[in-house]
Amino acid sequence: MRPVITFTTDFGPAAPAVCRAVMFRFCPDANIIDISHQVPRYSIHDGAGTLVFALPYMPVGIHLAVVDPGVGTDRLAIALRTARGDILIGPDNGLLIEAGEALGGIVEARSLENRELMLDGISNSFHGRDIFAPVAGHLAAGVPYESVGPAVPVEKLVRLPQVKPTVRDGALESVIVQILIYGNATFAGVPADLEAAIGPLTSGRPLALEFPAHDGAPAVEERTVWARTFGDVPVGSSLLYADSEGHLALADNQGDAAARLRLALDRPVRIRPA
Amino acid sequence: MRPVITFTTDFGPAAPAVCRAVMFRFCPDANIIDISHQVPRYSIHDGAGTLVFALPYMPVGIHLAVVDPGVGTDRLAIALRTARGDILIGPDNGLLIEAGEALGGIVEARSLENRELMLDGISNSFHGRDIFAPVAGHLAAGVPYESVGPAVPVEKLVRLPQVKPTVRDGALESVIVQILIYGNATFAGVPADLEAAIGPLTSGRPLALEFPAHDGAPAVEERTVWARTFGDVPVGSSLLYADSEGHLALADNQGDAAARLRLALDRPVRIRPA
Amino acid sequence: MRPVITFTTDFGPAAPAVCRAVMFRFCPDANIIDISHQVPRYSIHDGAGTLVFALPYMPVGIHLAVVDPGVGTDRLAIALRTARGDILIGPDNGLLIEAGEALGGIVEARSLENRELMLDGISNSFHGRDIFAPVAGHLAAGVPYESVGPAVPVEKLVRLPQVKPTVRDGALESVIVQILIYGNATFAGVPADLEAAIGPLTSGRPLALEFPAHDGAPAVEERTVWARTFGDVPVGSSLLYADSEGHLALADNQGDAAARLRLALDRPVRIRPA
Repeated sequence: MRPVITFTTDFGPAAPAVCRAVMFRFCPDANIIDISHQVPRYSIHDGAGTLVFALPYMPVGIHLAVVDPGVGTDRLAIALRTARGDILIGPDNGLLIEAGEALGGIVEARSLENRELMLDGISNSFHGRDIFAPVAGHLAAGVPYESVGPAVPVEKLVRLPQVKPTVRDGALESVIVQILIYGNATFAGVPADLEAAIGPLTSGRPLALEFPAHDGAPAVEERTVWARTFGDVPVGSSLLYADSEGHLALADNQGDAAARLRLALDRPVRIRPA
Repeated sequence: MRPVITFTTDFGPAAPAVCRAVMFRFCPDANIIDISHQVPRYSIHDGAGTLVFALPYMPVGIHLAVVDPGVGTDRLAIALRTARGDILIGPDNGLLIEAGEALGGIVEARSLENRELMLDGISNSFHGRDIFAPVAGHLAAGVPYESVGPAVPVEKLVRLPQVKPTVRDGALESVIVQILIYGNATFAGVPADLEAAIGPLTSGRPLALEFPAHDGAPAVEERTVWARTFGDVPVGSSLLYADSEGHLALADNQGDAAARLRLALDRPVRIRPA
Repeated sequence: MRPVITFTTDFGPAAPAVCRAVMFRFCPDANIIDISHQVPRYSIHDGAGTLVFALPYMPVGIHLAVVDPGVGTDRLAIALRTARGDILIGPDNGLLIEAGEALGGIVEARSLENRELMLDGISNSFHGRDIFAPVAGHLAAGVPYESVGPAVPVEKLVRLPQVKPTVRDGALESVIVQILIYGNATFAGVPADLEAAIGPLTSGRPLALEFPAHDGAPAVEERTVWARTFGDVPVGSSLLYADSEGHLALADNQGDAAARLRLALDRPVRIRPA
C-alpha cells in the first residue's frame, strides 16, 4: 500500500500544489489526500476542528497541517507521534494537539531542526514548501521519526484554550466552535450536557437559543426545536440536533442559519427551554 | 488499471476527504476522480446537470454522487447499473437518473440495505461517509453489485421534472437549466429547437431574449446575436451559441452575463428574432 | 515513476475533472497534479504568474495550462519543450512563456495540428477537453513531441507585455503583478530595485506607498515599514517585505491589505521613504 500523507492548510489554490510537488520529490509513491485548503485564513481553531473531524477516518500515516500566522517568528515547527502510529507535522501553535489526542494520544514530540530534511534556502513566509512538506515527504519515504530533530516535552507544546459548556440557571451556556459550509453552527458540548441543564431532549421539544450582541451583530433569540435530522422539520425551519460528530448544532433545513442569524466562531449562546 | 471511482457532492471542503479516506479503506488502490464538491448546496438539479456533463467522459467505473437534502428521512439510498457497466451510487431523489441514461441507460436498480457494506454507527446527517462511501469502496474492490441490497423497479425511482422548450408565436420558450462559472447561462433546448421556431440561425443574426421578472429580479430584454464562439463578438458583448454539450447558451465574451442580467436557475426565457 | 502531468486553468469545478478523465483515457498511469483551477477567469497574466510560482518546484513532465479567452478564434494551440525536458501545453497567448523560461528556457515550439491526438468532434468553446487534454495524455504516455504538429519559431510566440519597475525622483515606480489569497499584493521588482531608488532597506525603516486613483478606487497612501516577516510587525499592521519568490510585496499581518486598500492587478504604486 502506498504511504499516505494527508494535507490541510489555509493556503487556498496553487501553494498546496507546490508543497505536493515537494512531497512527491522525496516520496514519488505517496498517496496524498487533500483534506482542505480552505481553512479560514489564520484560523488555528478552525484548522484544529477540521483535523479532529477528518483525521480519525484517515489511514495511519503522515498528517501535514499548516495554519501558521506565526510563520517566520520563533515558534517551533514540530512532529508529533501518536499511539496509533501516525506522525502529525506542523507549527507549534495548538493546531495539531486535539487531533493527536483523537488518534489515541500524543506519545512523543520533536522539533524540526534537521536541515538536511528541508529545502535549501528557507524563505521567511512559506515554511509549508521549505520545511514542512520536505520533512513530510522524507518521513513518508521511510526516514526515521527520530531524525527530524530533538525531543520536546509534550507538556511544553502550545495548546488552544479549551472550550467547555456550563450549566447555569436552568440553561446551558456554550459558544460556537465551528461554522460549516451549509451555515450549520456547532456548539461546544453534546446532548448529555444540555440534558444536564434542562432535562430530557424529546423530539420536537421547543427550545430558545439566546445569542448576545457579538462583534457587530445584534443580540438575537432563535426559537427552534430538538430534532433528530433535517427532514424532521419543514424546509426553511431551524433545528437543534446532534451533528455527525455527536456535538450540539443548529441548522436551517435547506437554509443557512449562520448567515440568517449572523453567527460566527466564538459567539456565545445560552440554550434554554421555550 | 486501477478501479475508478468518480465523486461529486455539494459538500465543499473537508467532508469529501473523509469520504475519500473511507473509500481507500475498502479499496486502497482506487483512482478517485473528484468531479466537483461545489455543486450549489441542496441543488439536485444542478448536481444532475454536472453528472450529465462529466460522466460520459469518465472511464467505466463507480460513480458516487451526493446532493441529499433528504438525508436522514426515509428516501432510499440506491445503486444503479448502466448498460455501459458503470454503477451510480447516491440518494434516490433524481440526482442520478439522467446521467445513468447518458451512460447507455439504467439496466438495474438496487436499494442499499446491506449493513455489512456500511460503517458501524450510521449518523443521521452524514450518509456520504457512513453509507455511500463505504459501499462505493467495496464495489470498487470487487464486491458483487447484487450484494448491496434488494432490486428496485427502475420505473419506481424518483425523477426530476423534465424541462423541454416550446415553440409559440414565432418564438422559443425555454428556461435556464444551468449557470456555469463564467456566468454563462444554458437553456433547455438545442439549435434545432430554436430554428423550428424562428428559422435558420445564420452567424450574426440579431436575436432578442426576453426574461420576465423572476424571484426579485426585474424583467429584462437582452439584444444579442447568434455566433459560433466567443471570439466572434467584441469583448464585453453577448452571444447566443451552442455550448460544448450542444445546448443553447447565452454568454458575455470575457464578461459575466448571469451577474449582469441577474439570471438564475429556472428563470424562464423567450427567444425571438430582433 | 508515474508520468507527471500538472494542470492549471481558470475553469472552476467540474470541467477540470472532464479533462482529467480524458488524460487518464490516454495515460491511465498518469500522476496528475492540479496546481489551480481558480485562476481569475480570462486572466492570462495571473495564470502566467501562477505557473512561474509553481512549475519550478514540479517534477519534469507535461504541464497543461488553459486560460484561454480566445478559444475558438484563430489563435494557435502550442506545445513548448524546455531545456529541462518539460513540455508545456496551452494556447499561444503568452500564458506559458515566462514559465518556460523559468524551466531553463524554451528550446522548441510546435503548433498542435495532429488531429489523431485530439478527440473526435472538437467544440468551439472547450478546447481543454477536446484538444489540450488528449494531447497532454498522449505525450505523457510516450507519444513523441514531434508528432503534435509543425515547428513554430519561438520568437513568433505571443508574449505578455513585460513589467519592470523604474527609479524616478528618489522613489521606485512599479505596479501590482499579483494579489494572493491572503490579500498580499506582489509588485514588479525585488529589494535591490528599491534599494537602487532609496538606499538600504534596514529592518523597521518607514516607507510610504502611494497608490493613485485606479479603476474606481480612490488614491490612497499607505504608511508601512520594511520587515523580514509578518511576525515582525503587530497583528493588523502592514509590512513591505520580500515574498517567498523574492519579489517586493505588501501585506497586513493576519489581515487583508488588498481588501483594505482596494488593491488590484495592474494598479500602479510609488514607493518612497517616509
